[in-house]
Amino acid sequence: MTKVTAQMSVSLDGYYAGPRHEGDGSWMESAEAAAFFRVTRWATDAAAWRERQGFAGGESDVDSEIIAESFASAGAYVMGRRMAEGGEVPWGDEPPFRAPVFVVTHRPRAVLERQGGTSFTFVTDGVQSAVDQARAVAGGKNVAIAGGGSLVRQVLEAGLLDELELHIAPVVLGRGLRLLDDDLRLPDKQAIELTPTRVVHTPRVTHVRYSVNGRAPLLLDDRGSGGGPVEVFTA
Amino acid sequence: MTKVTAQMSVSLDGYYAGPRHEGDGSWMESAEAAAFFRVTRWATDAAAWRERQGFAGGESDVDSEIIAESFASAGAYVMGRRMAEGGEVPWGDEPPFRAPVFVVTHRPRAVLERQGGTSFTFVTDGVQSAVDQARAVAGGKNVAIAGGGSLVRQVLEAGLLDELELHIAPVVLGRGLRLLDDDLRLPDKQAIELTPTRVVHTPRVTHVRYSVNGRAPLLLDDRGSGGGPVEVFTA
Repeated sequence: MTKVTAQMSVSLDGYYAGPRHEGDGSWMESAEAAAFFRVTRWATDAAAWRERQGFAGGESDVDSEIIAESFASAGAYVMGRRMAEGGEVPWGDEPPFRAPVFVVTHRPRAVLERQGGTSFTFVTDGVQSAVDQARAVAGGKNVAIAGGGSLVRQVLEAGLLDELELHIAPVVLGRGLRLLDDDLRLPDKQAIELTPTRVVHTPRVTHVRYSVNGRAPLLLDDRGSGGGPVEVFTA
Repeated sequence: MTKVTAQMSVSLDGYYAGPRHEGDGSWMESAEAAAFFRVTRWATDAAAWRERQGFAGGESDVDSEIIAESFASAGAYVMGRRMAEGGEVPWGDEPPFRAPVFVVTHRPRAVLERQGGTSFTFVTDGVQSAVDQARAVAGGKNVAIAGGGSLVRQVLEAGLLDELELHIAPVVLGRGLRLLDDDLRLPDKQAIELTPTRVVHTPRVTHVRYSVNGRAPLLLDDRGSGGGPVEVFTA
């Protein structure tokens, strides 16, 4: 059965990149990129990622197996506009996805056909539509939300996400673009509950996979003294 | 050998409590408390925590063992002023620490002697002094930074922290008081590197322990294509 999944590399303080690069200068040399490179290094050193990029070598370890697994489980991708535009040149003629990619954007654009099974379809009628179009062609595999962070937040907030996997790199960045930022609009005293379903850890990164249970009110309790939880009225 | 340690329960998005409770109304009924109760519920249901609070029962499971272990390893505590004042009444005559507690504050105050081995010493000459005073009486055990979050950030930022353990509750809160907030002042393209030393996971919480390696520059790299990392000049 098709699940809508997202996986993202983040720092211990929740950033997937440094402060957003604006204006002049090379993104590759920006603070945004330097932090992104740090949190994703576990992946770029892995054989499974390198093979998708057309690079030789790399580590064939549990981190690499996790990358191979997530590529293999995805039948289609949904991607944010900024990520798609940023990747268009570096990904080249044979992008690593090898599956249809649906880009959420406000700008209509013709489908980009690439080699190796990757295509980019530009969806202008919203996230739900992009997820539905991806599901229709996923062939029973998962719809993977490729990022960036704001798209993952939108999908989580809309209740469309079934599974979230974080790859937590052991580094504190102190600033940057946060995956679970506080523009996630939840009502007062309401939260999104998850259940951890798998934890895999290596010295380089901690992989924690969650199934998303959905919205629930935050409960007051009596700090364990025996009276049990008391529901808080949401404001 | 005495280590300076901190451990904190946080949500998946890094919050240890809800938005700060200000002004009128009961803290116990605030959004700050409701979120705090959620992220700490794994602990308040544990036998080892309940015993320290004088409550009966609770779960004798791996979560409880982790609480017992952190109480047993602490020879002295350092605590922020707001946490100390907030706990003074609920902790009562026999607080759960059973060791000397050094409170970082700007307000001079006489030592509070409590039953069961807990005392509160109010330190007005800074975090380093509080850590030094705690180390002197820790008897070779650890100096535990009890919180709150802003004190943990200060200790981490000052390079005084040897070990950090996060208890990550499977919930997204969307707002509140964040342990690793962006008031952590790191220079541009510099990060704090850590090494994960232990991961223990249950359906209720994921415990990740790190040793803190210290500051390091963020490196540019070539995304794995073979040229190896290139150091970025820090601004």
